[in-house]
Amino acid sequence: MIQTDILIIGAGPTGLFTVFEAGLLKLRCHLIDALPQPGGQCSEIYPKKPIYDIPAYPEILAGDLTKNLLEQIKQFEPGFTLGERAETIEKQDDGSFIVTTNKGTKHQAPVVAIAGGLGSFEPRKPKIENITKFEDFGIEYMIKEPELYRDKDVVIAGGGDSALDWSIFLTDVAKSVTLIHRRNEFRGALDSVEKVQELKNLGKINLITPAEVKGVLGNNHVTGVVIEEKGQEPYILDTDHFIPLFGLAPKLGPIGNWGLEIEKNAIKVNNALDYQTNIPGIYAIGDVNTYPGKLKLILCGFHEATLMCQSAYQLIHPDKKYVMKYTTVGGVQGFDGTKKEAPKAVVKAIE
Amino acid sequence: MIQTDILIIGAGPTGLFTVFEAGLLKLRCHLIDALPQPGGQCSEIYPKKPIYDIPAYPEILAGDLTKNLLEQIKQFEPGFTLGERAETIEKQDDGSFIVTTNKGTKHQAPVVAIAGGLGSFEPRKPKIENITKFEDFGIEYMIKEPELYRDKDVVIAGGGDSALDWSIFLTDVAKSVTLIHRRNEFRGALDSVEKVQELKNLGKINLITPAEVKGVLGNNHVTGVVIEEKGQEPYILDTDHFIPLFGLAPKLGPIGNWGLEIEKNAIKVNNALDYQTNIPGIYAIGDVNTYPGKLKLILCGFHEATLMCQSAYQLIHPDKKYVMKYTTVGGVQGFDGTKKEAPKAVVKAIE
Repeated sequence: MIQTDILIIGAGPTGLFTVFEAGLLKLRCHLIDALPQPGGQCSEIYPKKPIYDIPAYPEILAGDLTKNLLEQIKQFEPGFTLGERAETIEKQDDGSFIVTTNKGTKHQAPVVAIAGGLGSFEPRKPKIENITKFEDFGIEYMIKEPELYRDKDVVIAGGGDSALDWSIFLTDVAKSVTLIHRRNEFRGALDSVEKVQELKNLGKINLITPAEVKGVLGNNHVTGVVIEEKGQEPYILDTDHFIPLFGLAPKLGPIGNWGLEIEKNAIKVNNALDYQTNIPGIYAIGDVNTYPGKLKLILCGFHEATLMCQSAYQLIHPDKKYVMKYTTVGGVQGFDGTKKEAPKAVVKAIE
Repeated sequence: MIQTDILIIGAGPTGLFTVFEAGLLKLRCHLIDALPQPGGQCSEIYPKKPIYDIPAYPEILAGDLTKNLLEQIKQFEPGFTLGERAETIEKQDDGSFIVTTNKGTKHQAPVVAIAGGLGSFEPRKPKIENITKFEDFGIEYMIKEPELYRDKDVVIAGGGDSALDWSIFLTDVAKSVTLIHRRNEFRGALDSVEKVQELKNLGKINLITPAEVKGVLGNNHVTGVVIEEKGQEPYILDTDHFIPLFGLAPKLGPIGNWGLEIEKNAIKVNNALDYQTNIPGIYAIGDVNTYPGKLKLILCGFHEATLMCQSAYQLIHPDKKYVMKYTTVGGVQGFDGTKKEAPKAVVKAIE
């Protein structure tokens, strides 16, 4: 059982910054995220895209925002359960909560902060009858560990950046890479499209367009796919893996069944105070919450996380009063023993 | 008469970021600040000190925060009335407000956003009977334009960073620099204290300690000061300028008389919605406001500014509905004709 002070569901920018504000209050955090790495959408969907409305950053790439947040929180030693989706929550007699993931990992904390963004990003799946049977046995909708494909035959399907970029990446890893798309046209960064063209010309990517994968073959593991290519009879291509990269769609998912008050696919909170939900001890911050005037902006999540942590502190330490100290004055004391602080003024005679 | 959409009182971080959020809504802003430069406390009091709790900045100097915010808003061409204090406000028949400064500059806008921080920073003044008579005529409590002291005799009083740093700076500008402090010990950055010691040893700073200035002489302009040095009879030192740098103390100031609901030296706002005060059309954002759970943090000011701008938009354009577009998707269109946007995806065939 993983135990912590604040259990954060969602490791996007809001969830990550919560670790910092909690750390200033000497509260420890653990984060759960269905994606294989922290950063939420910023890492998974648009790491190379610029954001212009993060205060004091005229421009920052979403991937760099994640990187900077991770750097900012590292001295507070957050724990992570990644690649698992928070599935169930149970309130304990002592008031704490136990959250269990789809893989059975259990976490206990007196406070739960849902920073789930637009929900957990679920992959769009191709309509193939027996596909679920092969999930994790040759079918992957997301590439978590590229080494899995070392010296294997791999078929990727899709026409966007993910399909292009992973096809490029895996040419150096896999035995063979086949890219299948239902159109001849791909939609992505110019660089990526041109690189795939080049690798195709070199024979390093086997391109099949316009075509679709219509079936998967195998016993306990994928051994081949059935391809329908325009103007041809369906045929079988032997492969060890089939990776459909058709994008991710956000779904509120299991959190929707936790007894929280939901409005338009978002969790209602009391914004007049601390972003607490209708269940005391469970907060909702960032894009996942809603209240009058709500804006789904990263900078709003940062504010909500900050106020939420103050409230969580009171809940965890009902007898203590926290007096806020500015970081410029008090510095930042890490759980890892580090201390950052402004250079101190000296008092010194001039003679 | 200066006319704008949102008149912002206070050019600290919150006021500056308001320009950005307003700009996204195609609203123009003008800022009034009593200090001679934008940035508020961050520029005036602690530009060289690090802040650790600006989201995604593990560490940023307060001066750099200001610089980055100015860079972020420049395409929205904010106007500035600096070195003047907002003094009076009058509601017009058309619902707009006219704000007049202590120097008589008039500004008109349908929306006023008070981002006044802890108030206007008023210099602490030495107790010298006729000192007000010489203000701007040889007595300055803040150095706005160093060139004013070119080839002049200057007396600075004070024992902190400002007194040290300006004494150092003015040795290259003024004819002579005298530094007076009531103690032998100075309190400041080690570098600064050591530099003053060095300049004193070189004869470039005339150091008089422990001593105090007890009188000012002159007719229309300062010609000398009366110095009480320990163990000596009071004596006169000829000088063109006397600059007491005894620090700044925040005062809510004239805003306190605008009819706004005040609680503990802060302006009460409705945080359940849009940070509007009891006077419709006047908002209060950042450290100057208060509401249940309020934290006086820069990152909270950024959030409040953002929600406030949405409300201001509705007030200015009651018939329009604004549909928020993410900057990553829609880019940022400046009033100066510039456009920043993410590189577009291409749609391109691979053959």
